[in-house]
Amino acid sequence: MLLELTMRELDKMSAREGRTSLAGVFPPIPTPFDEEENILFDRLEENLERWGGLPLGGYVVGGSNGEFVSLSQVERIEVLRRVCAQVGPGRLIVAGSGLHSTRETLKQTQAMAEVGAHAALVITPSYYKGRMESQALINHFRAIADHAPIPVVLYNVPANTGINMGADTIVPLSEHENIIGLKDSAGDVAKIAEIILRAPPDFQVLAGSASFLLGALAVGAVGTISALANLAGESLASLIELFHGGKLEQARVLQQRLVRPNAAVTSRFGVAGLKYALDLLGFYGGPPRSPLLALDSDQKVEIRTILEEAELLSQR
Amino acid sequence: MLLELTMRELDKMSAREGRTSLAGVFPPIPTPFDEEENILFDRLEENLERWGGLPLGGYVVGGSNGEFVSLSQVERIEVLRRVCAQVGPGRLIVAGSGLHSTRETLKQTQAMAEVGAHAALVITPSYYKGRMESQALINHFRAIADHAPIPVVLYNVPANTGINMGADTIVPLSEHENIIGLKDSAGDVAKIAEIILRAPPDFQVLAGSASFLLGALAVGAVGTISALANLAGESLASLIELFHGGKLEQARVLQQRLVRPNAAVTSRFGVAGLKYALDLLGFYGGPPRSPLLALDSDQKVEIRTILEEAELLSQR
Amino acid sequence: MLLELTMRELDKMSAREGRTSLAGVFPPIPTPFDEEENILFDRLEENLERWGGLPLGGYVVGGSNGEFVSLSQVERIEVLRRVCAQVGPGRLIVAGSGLHSTRETLKQTQAMAEVGAHAALVITPSYYKGRMESQALINHFRAIADHAPIPVVLYNVPANTGINMGADTIVPLSEHENIIGLKDSAGDVAKIAEIILRAPPDFQVLAGSASFLLGALAVGAVGTISALANLAGESLASLIELFHGGKLEQARVLQQRLVRPNAAVTSRFGVAGLKYALDLLGFYGGPPRSPLLALDSDQKVEIRTILEEAELLSQR
Amino acid sequence: MLLELTMRELDKMSAREGRTSLAGVFPPIPTPFDEEENILFDRLEENLERWGGLPLGGYVVGGSNGEFVSLSQVERIEVLRRVCAQVGPGRLIVAGSGLHSTRETLKQTQAMAEVGAHAALVITPSYYKGRMESQALINHFRAIADHAPIPVVLYNVPANTGINMGADTIVPLSEHENIIGLKDSAGDVAKIAEIILRAPPDFQVLAGSASFLLGALAVGAVGTISALANLAGESLASLIELFHGGKLEQARVLQQRLVRPNAAVTSRFGVAGLKYALDLLGFYGGPPRSPLLALDSDQKVEIRTILEEAELLSQR
Repeated sequence: MLLELTMRELDKMSAREGRTSLAGVFPPIPTPFDEEENILFDRLEENLERWGGLPLGGYVVGGSNGEFVSLSQVERIEVLRRVCAQVGPGRLIVAGSGLHSTRETLKQTQAMAEVGAHAALVITPSYYKGRMESQALINHFRAIADHAPIPVVLYNVPANTGINMGADTIVPLSEHENIIGLKDSAGDVAKIAEIILRAPPDFQVLAGSASFLLGALAVGAVGTISALANLAGESLASLIELFHGGKLEQARVLQQRLVRPNAAVTSRFGVAGLKYALDLLGFYGGPPRSPLLALDSDQKVEIRTILEEAELLSQR
Repeated sequence: MLLELTMRELDKMSAREGRTSLAGVFPPIPTPFDEEENILFDRLEENLERWGGLPLGGYVVGGSNGEFVSLSQVERIEVLRRVCAQVGPGRLIVAGSGLHSTRETLKQTQAMAEVGAHAALVITPSYYKGRMESQALINHFRAIADHAPIPVVLYNVPANTGINMGADTIVPLSEHENIIGLKDSAGDVAKIAEIILRAPPDFQVLAGSASFLLGALAVGAVGTISALANLAGESLASLIELFHGGKLEQARVLQQRLVRPNAAVTSRFGVAGLKYALDLLGFYGGPPRSPLLALDSDQKVEIRTILEEAELLSQR
Repeated sequence: MLLELTMRELDKMSAREGRTSLAGVFPPIPTPFDEEENILFDRLEENLERWGGLPLGGYVVGGSNGEFVSLSQVERIEVLRRVCAQVGPGRLIVAGSGLHSTRETLKQTQAMAEVGAHAALVITPSYYKGRMESQALINHFRAIADHAPIPVVLYNVPANTGINMGADTIVPLSEHENIIGLKDSAGDVAKIAEIILRAPPDFQVLAGSASFLLGALAVGAVGTISALANLAGESLASLIELFHGGKLEQARVLQQRLVRPNAAVTSRFGVAGLKYALDLLGFYGGPPRSPLLALDSDQKVEIRTILEEAELLSQR
Repeated sequence: MLLELTMRELDKMSAREGRTSLAGVFPPIPTPFDEEENILFDRLEENLERWGGLPLGGYVVGGSNGEFVSLSQVERIEVLRRVCAQVGPGRLIVAGSGLHSTRETLKQTQAMAEVGAHAALVITPSYYKGRMESQALINHFRAIADHAPIPVVLYNVPANTGINMGADTIVPLSEHENIIGLKDSAGDVAKIAEIILRAPPDFQVLAGSASFLLGALAVGAVGTISALANLAGESLASLIELFHGGKLEQARVLQQRLVRPNAAVTSRFGVAGLKYALDLLGFYGGPPRSPLLALDSDQKVEIRTILEEAELLSQR
């Protein structure tokens, strides 16, 4: 019933005009590796099985937490193909398809649409940082959106790219009919408010981290793609539901409780932290690919403590 | 009646145990200069007269928007003395007393208490950036709070100082009985949520900019010290009232409308922008002190347009 | 004769114990595209023909100026294969082989060795910036150097990666027998001096930009990989020769003259600037790949003026 | 004899047209405090006595290492007055006179000239970082230089101010007849080369840190103001002499040996490190003023080791 309420509430807000709805909670799923760093497709399948029972809007495949930059081109497509084959209707599959050049990104987006992705999450190109002025980014995303067979979601994540795409770049892009939303991980709710004010009403903004979800909802965001959604999808769906139900005090308490576990699987310990937290919860996490380091034992103890204090371990 | 409701609501939240309440809206008032950059005390008096009729919690004197770094020591005290002499009871006077050394800051805080300040806003020291590790900041603020005759409010403003004080520094300080709150201008609502979770319940957090006020309220902030409060104090008080009244949709619309005028008087055009906006609204703004540049005519037109679009000019 | 003198002088310094010598000037050659952004292999061949007559130590293929991030994996190998097929003995071919994961970088390095590269230039991985602590980088480079069939050159370029590898990471790596040198583009000659002091004597440091070549030579660098080497290889070789010949005043004058043209083809206008400068000099430059923008006409005029003032146009 | 040679050599380079010469080595002297953080003027006197026997060009009083930001206005003037009274002719006294506003900086400069300073070192204003565009800085320095009774030296130190003044700001200022030079601590020798190329020939650039002195000399700098000059003035004077004598290999060895001790008293341990190093050498160092922390015992051991390895302890 929790899920139903959330979904009904959110549908009213965002899925206008037949647009793909990004409302709700979307875990950017990690890629499971064995100790030799080879992909374990059966573990991926088991994880998806478990997430299948939770109130999620869908999955992001090949995002930062999926270690997309550490996979070969072939692996990126194969992981996506498996997810699309397994996941049934009613869940949105958003594929991270960004590469550094416009032409390669477009090819990748087309390949991902072919294997079944419903939408593409396209990261800002970032290698030539000094040259990524607004016009370069606008041209890039427009070219991709013009030719992509699936809707495009913009992806701004300055902690990884060193590029912080501003409102003056995002607003013009929000007017493109095939650009349906934005995942913003910068944590700047003032910018999110400005974008929602200036963009068309059906442009959908997603909090790129669970740490500022409530602040983002307050100014009009519709959901979240966040590492924490892999392990606390139910809590995040509750937070959204409490917010829309006007239960702000409860939403606030829940939001505060999620800040530290969120940091543990993002800024603090990154993908290795996320994977270890999944291990603790009965999912398969496993090691990250090098050069990411595995956690040491002190770090593992710390993550366990943080999850326990936030009641994320006991609740399962 | 607007003011009464707001204040009653807020009092329940924060003014526990006889602590000085920081709930509400506090403009950090600018220092009026003539064309020779001398202080115009009568203009200051007229501005205070006008602000007197608005639903404000009090004033910050000698903050960043007061150009405190550009005043002599004597001028800083004299401006404060005049404000204290004019402003009646019921309004809190918070004095910016920070200097680079602990001993000079303490002397300044004591001098400001003597002329009538109710609380001191103490900025992070920042010149020796590489040495401002957490322990140095903790020692600094504790030494001041130990000896200050008035309560201390921490002031974190990385855009000016290059120092971003984190939750692990702020939380231990929040336990000091003479440190009653924090003005945080970094715009990181996740950090604000974490601080409110971990600090004692009567530690009061203020949004250091109006741009993320609603997001900050959502996670438990009690008010704001923000440049925009000088010209939109009534709107900001309404926003807080709407939030506490559960009228989130209206609060959201108001918040979105305030983002661009807020940027115009902060990140975009700074103190010169704030002063020109005050001129447009019938206050005295005047020029900033050098090295701050006065606005050119294009910038002035842009500020006027932004204020008009946000309905801040017409409403007065 | 110029070349002969330079090479003799330099050989004394660096090519000890049969190590591959990095002494001298190495242009990181751009990849020529047509207006549809397809690679023009015959233009590449013509460019190599021209560079063949200049006093260069060799070429970097697939560096930042080669737009390696904008090429497909297949294209990266094919460009290298063509260069290796054309370039005769006596010139070193250094191949940029970096990718984000250790395993993919190693595969790429092996593939590049197979088509004929003499050494691999391996960039710091950078996507998970918060996790690229010293140990992660050390593990990464050691794993690659352990298994690479060709010598490895470290590549530190914070302007593109957001990662600035310090002396405490580089010095331990310098002791690996298969890591023969460093291209550092950060411009920090104090760090270069420290590395040369602490590293084994046959570890070779290259200035990653022509702008600080003389400063780097003064503390012991052996040469340069720099965008400017594509168009001013002769001047850079002269600068090195003047320095080693003790003609410091002339070296200084030449160094100063090269700072602005260097900026024009790097920080100022980037790869598009470099390519246009090559067009002006009779090489084939052509357009960059999107999202890099082509230059507008004002920018083109500015580059021409800068090259003329530095006497780089007239001298050819 | 060492000193004589150095001075003759340098005089040829810089003291043209009766301009105050900045050639040589200038320690930015620290301010001695007792354990209660009060100034010990007799210790200052003793230190000056010792420095008096070394081959220095003069002293900087009230620089970053003098903890000028931690002194009261009265203290700043009094320290300078004592130094001017003690130091005899032949040594230049450069007074740090910067404050955040143009008018206060000018007053301070005039007051410092009155007590005997020969030149003023004026730091970039930095509090309103977002507003310190080139024109604001140019106006600031011109206004001061127009009215200052002594020559002005520009001071660029981004590690402390967060402002990095570029060549396009410095070059126009270098044309002002009362602006005679620049202390640049950014370590960017490419920028130094560009400035020396574009500025009038008698504009004098000083390396703001000993770590890149040789690189700066190579492109035309005339000397250094650097923390390390307080404890290794003789070595730095030797380095300059070796450079001008064409003994590059020896200069390079000496430069490399100074990088780590330089870091120990700057980026690594800051003013507290410098003061402890002075204690070790028989000067009076003492504690820094809060919020700067004193060193712990591990840090002290590390500094002693670094000085010993660089042969700076044994040589005295």
